Amino acid sequence: MKILGIDTSSQVGTVAIMEDDKLIGEYIINTKKTHSQKLMPMIDEIFKLCEISIEDIDLIGLCIGPGSFTGLRIGAATAKALAHVRNISVATINSLESLAFNMNFSKGIICPIMDAQRNQVYTCKYIWENNTLVSVEDITVKNIDSLVEEIKERYEEVVLLGEAVDLYKDKLIDLDNVYIAPNSHKISRASSICELAFEKYKKGDVKNHYDVVPYYIRKSQAEVQYEERLKRMGENGK
Amino acid sequence: MKILGIDTSSQVGTVAIMEDDKLIGEYIINTKKTHSQKLMPMIDEIFKLCEISIEDIDLIGLCIGPGSFTGLRIGAATAKALAHVRNISVATINSLESLAFNMNFSKGIICPIMDAQRNQVYTCKYIWENNTLVSVEDITVKNIDSLVEEIKERYEEVVLLGEAVDLYKDKLIDLDNVYIAPNSHKISRASSICELAFEKYKKGDVKNHYDVVPYYIRKSQAEVQYEERLKRMGENGK
Repeated sequence: MKILGIDTSSQVGTVAIMEDDKLIGEYIINTKKTHSQKLMPMIDEIFKLCEISIEDIDLIGLCIGPGSFTGLRIGAATAKALAHVRNISVATINSLESLAFNMNFSKGIICPIMDAQRNQVYTCKYIWENNTLVSVEDITVKNIDSLVEEIKERYEEVVLLGEAVDLYKDKLIDLDNVYIAPNSHKISRASSICELAFEKYKKGDVKNHYDVVPYYIRKSQAEVQYEERLKRMGENGK
Repeated sequence: MKILGIDTSSQVGTVAIMEDDKLIGEYIINTKKTHSQKLMPMIDEIFKLCEISIEDIDLIGLCIGPGSFTGLRIGAATAKALAHVRNISVATINSLESLAFNMNFSKGIICPIMDAQRNQVYTCKYIWENNTLVSVEDITVKNIDSLVEEIKERYEEVVLLGEAVDLYKDKLIDLDNVYIAPNSHKISRASSICELAFEKYKKGDVKNHYDVVPYYIRKSQAEVQYEERLKRMGENGK
């Protein structure tokens, strides 16, 4: 079976094609160009060079977040449209587990961090246990300073990765027990999405495209402001 | 500085662009299409989507082998031509170290294997020591059965990767102390070439394109046969 993997949860746009457990193509673009400009040309181009078409795809692996609100919508809309047209299923993968998978068979605690704005990060912690990636806590939103304190106090060896590492480099670089992944491993990779999607498929854990929704964790700034405005209007109306 | 990484040492064709320590693009195609058909279109396409041109490239990172004789020649010819036109240097990277770098910060002994034909593999062993990838032996050509015996007897935990893993899967899959890397990590990645090329550049270890030659370890089958023929002719002439 052929899986198309899509990840637009951060600035990185990445697509990959896996045939059973063989990666046959992967494309990563990490520039400021928006996903609406780069995603479809990447899919189109990788299909051409791999000499396949959307007709050959049996499953879509989609990164549903947490991450960039707009990025996730572009990825989800694209995956849903393609799955709808082809009448195929979607395996939804969270962005932090996919990042952790980049550090395959790594030593230590793997801690991906993604920018959640306002000095916060989306984060989780993973370890490789008996050749399997296991999460050791739930996905959460944390203040970066609290996370730094926790890393200092609680762990022996921590691997940090994800786009927010560059954002908070000054706070992270001098921690003695931290290893920062190189850029080749630090950013999202659709090959990791494909690998995890294939695992989910084997367990029967796939979705109809109608049921696919981005995983936002918390409300967007626009929603928060809208609710605050409604509340103020209500109070003024009393 | 911008680095263009190229690896055509196996069936996988892969190119990447790194700007200082930031990966801005990577392309991997792992189909039977020949490198002469896929390499230049991949470079052309990644430049377009990253909105840069060969004029922006300051260094070429080239995988010089060991690996496929013809593949290495296509990669080397392309890298030499581009470096010549732009008058820039080339950092040469060996294929086994680059594969080992895919398993960034991994546990155990990392043992990449590449097909050397006649039941032999090009191989080496690496470990992550103080956050640095270190080779623990010289690159060599080994009979696959001798390597299997050595792995069984000498090591506690071995990570196997490289294209030859699929070729010799039957001999490898049941070894208790072996972890086979997933396909997303098992094959060549030009982002690893870029990372290692940047390290070499920082040490001043770069070459003029005239001095770049593929790293073959042993003679090609054609050369062996030619020499045998010459020898036979000499003997007959006596």
